[in-house]
Amino acid sequence: MGAWHHHGGNVGAARRRFPDAPAPWLDLSTGINPIPWDAARAGPIDWSALPDAQALARLEAEAAQHFSVAAECVCAVPGTEIGLRLLDTLALPAPLRFVAPSYGTYGEIAAAGRPIVADVLEHEAEQGGTLLLARPNNPDGETLAEARLHEIAGRLEAKGGVLVVDEAFADTLEESTVVARLPGRVIALRSFGKFFGLAGLRLGFVIAEATLLAPLRRQLGSWPVNSAALTIGLAAYRDQPWIGATRLRLRRSAARLDVLLRRRGLNPVGECPLFRLVSTPDAGALFERLGGQGILTRPFAYAPHWLRIGLPGNDAGFDRLDRALADG
Amino acid sequence: MGAWHHHGGNVGAARRRFPDAPAPWLDLSTGINPIPWDAARAGPIDWSALPDAQALARLEAEAAQHFSVAAECVCAVPGTEIGLRLLDTLALPAPLRFVAPSYGTYGEIAAAGRPIVADVLEHEAEQGGTLLLARPNNPDGETLAEARLHEIAGRLEAKGGVLVVDEAFADTLEESTVVARLPGRVIALRSFGKFFGLAGLRLGFVIAEATLLAPLRRQLGSWPVNSAALTIGLAAYRDQPWIGATRLRLRRSAARLDVLLRRRGLNPVGECPLFRLVSTPDAGALFERLGGQGILTRPFAYAPHWLRIGLPGNDAGFDRLDRALADG
Repeated sequence: MGAWHHHGGNVGAARRRFPDAPAPWLDLSTGINPIPWDAARAGPIDWSALPDAQALARLEAEAAQHFSVAAECVCAVPGTEIGLRLLDTLALPAPLRFVAPSYGTYGEIAAAGRPIVADVLEHEAEQGGTLLLARPNNPDGETLAEARLHEIAGRLEAKGGVLVVDEAFADTLEESTVVARLPGRVIALRSFGKFFGLAGLRLGFVIAEATLLAPLRRQLGSWPVNSAALTIGLAAYRDQPWIGATRLRLRRSAARLDVLLRRRGLNPVGECPLFRLVSTPDAGALFERLGGQGILTRPFAYAPHWLRIGLPGNDAGFDRLDRALADG
Repeated sequence: MGAWHHHGGNVGAARRRFPDAPAPWLDLSTGINPIPWDAARAGPIDWSALPDAQALARLEAEAAQHFSVAAECVCAVPGTEIGLRLLDTLALPAPLRFVAPSYGTYGEIAAAGRPIVADVLEHEAEQGGTLLLARPNNPDGETLAEARLHEIAGRLEAKGGVLVVDEAFADTLEESTVVARLPGRVIALRSFGKFFGLAGLRLGFVIAEATLLAPLRRQLGSWPVNSAALTIGLAAYRDQPWIGATRLRLRRSAARLDVLLRRRGLNPVGECPLFRLVSTPDAGALFERLGGQGILTRPFAYAPHWLRIGLPGNDAGFDRLDRALADG
C-alpha cells in the first residue's frame, strides 16, 4: 500500500514513486484550502516565551464566537488528529460506533468500536452509546441534512448517548457548531488548518459543554498549542472579511472543478467545497496517470474505484489538471 | 494562590498583581534559556502544508544523535508537558511513585501515585513498579549522581520495574540520555524549549526502546508536532557550535548569579545552570519586593521559604536584579 493510502499530503513519497514527474508537484491529495490566510499578517511570533495563558483564553473566546458557543465550551488542541485520539479521555458511553467510509483515524481510535453506514444512523442512535460521524463527511463530502441530525441527536439523548461530530471541514459552511444547535450531549471537533489553509500550525478545537471538557483540559495541561497557533489563530478568526470571501471563493472553485471533471467524463460527488470524490472503474490507473504528470490525488485502499481530488489554487493548476485528464 | 504558584512564566498575571512595577518585566520565573537559538536562521516556515513525514523522521534522527540513541527510540511530542501527561498510554507497571518536591505536574498525572523523597530512591526501587524523577531536578537543581542512578536502575530492573527520568533540563549537561546509559527499562523525556530558549514552539521527546514507544506514537498520530518545530528543531540540534558555546555560557551565567545572590546574603543551591533555588525565611516578602520592581521570580505554595530565580539574559538584567536585592 502506498504512503498516500494512509493520509493525503505526502508529496515526498509521491516524488519517490514518480521520480520522472514534472516539478513542482500539484498536491490535490488533501482537503486543505490551497489559498491560505496570510500568516505574516499576524505579526512576528515570539517563540522564546511559553505560550501565554491569556492569549490562549483570547483564542478560545474568539473561536467560540466563530462557532456560536460560550468560550468555556471550547478547548484548543494541537490539531484535531490528536483531539480525535484524545476523545477516550472523555469517558464516552459504550458502545462506540463510527460512520464508515470516513476519516481513517476513526477506525484506529475505536479499539472496541464498530463501523456503521450513514444510512442506519437513526436506528443505531436508538441503542444509545456514542456515535462518531463527520459533517461534511470525508472522503465523499456528504453533508447530513439538519433534520436527520436533529432526529439522531434526539434519539441518542433519549438513551443517554453522546453524538460526536467531526466538523473538520465545517468552516466552509456558514453555520454554528452542532454543539450549539442539537439537543443532548454533543461533542464537535473543528480544524483550523483546513479552511484557513495552514495545516502546519497544528490547531484544532474540541467543543462541548464545559464539564464534559474538563478531563481533556487536564490531559493537555497548561500549554496545549504553540505560540504561533495562538497568534495566527486569533488574528485569522477575527478576519471576518477574509472568512466570508473565502467561503464564496471555495464554493466557486468547487463548482469550477465539477465542470472540469464532468467535461473529462468523471462524475464528482459531495458537498464539501474543499474536495470532490470521483468514482470510476479505472481510478487506480487514473491515480498513476496523474502521478506521472506530477499531480497527487488521494486513492483509497478500501475503495479502489475512488479518487478524491482537492481544489487547485489557481488557473494554472486547473489547466494542468484539465490537460492531464484530457491526455487519457 | 497566585497564578505564579502553578507555573513560571505568567508575566500577564504579574502585571495585574503589580500594576505599578516598572516595565518591561524581567521574567526570572522560568528555567528557560534567556538567550534563545535564533529561530530565523532556520529559514521561513511553510504553514500551509501538513507537517512533512520525512521532516519528522529527520528531526527524530537528529535528536536521537544528540541524545546518543537510535532514531527509533525517539518520539517527538508537542511539548514535554503533554509528553508527561501521555505517559499513562505506556502502561507503566504499578505502583507509580514520583520524587517530590519536583515538577508539579508529576502529582497531577499520578492519580494513584505516591510522592517520595529522593533520599529513599534505592529503597523504593526494590519494590519494582515505576519511579519518576527529574535529573537535574526542578526546583532544587539537584542532579542525582551517576552511581546512584545506576544502582536505582539496577534494583528496579531486578523487579521488572521502569525508571522514568525527566531530562527536561539535561541538555545543559554534556551527556547522553539515561536511556543510553542505564540498565533495564528506562524512559526519558527531553525538552527542546528550555535549553534552546524557544518554549513557545512546544517540542519535546519521549525516549525509550522502540517497542515501549509504540502506543505513544499511536496516541499522537501522524502529525505530533507543528511545522516550525520540525524546521527549527532540526536546524538547532545540528548547530553543534551554538550548543557547545551555550552550555559554557549558561554555566558562567549561573556562576555569576551565585556570586550576586551570595553578595546579597542569599545561599543558592542546585546544579542546573538554568536556575538557582534560594531558601530564606522571608521568601514571600522577597517575591513581593522583586515583583514591585518588575522582576518575576518563582515562589512555591508548598515551600513558602523557597524562591527559584532564573538566569538574567544580559548585564542589564544582572544589574537590575542586584539593585533590587540591595534595596531590601
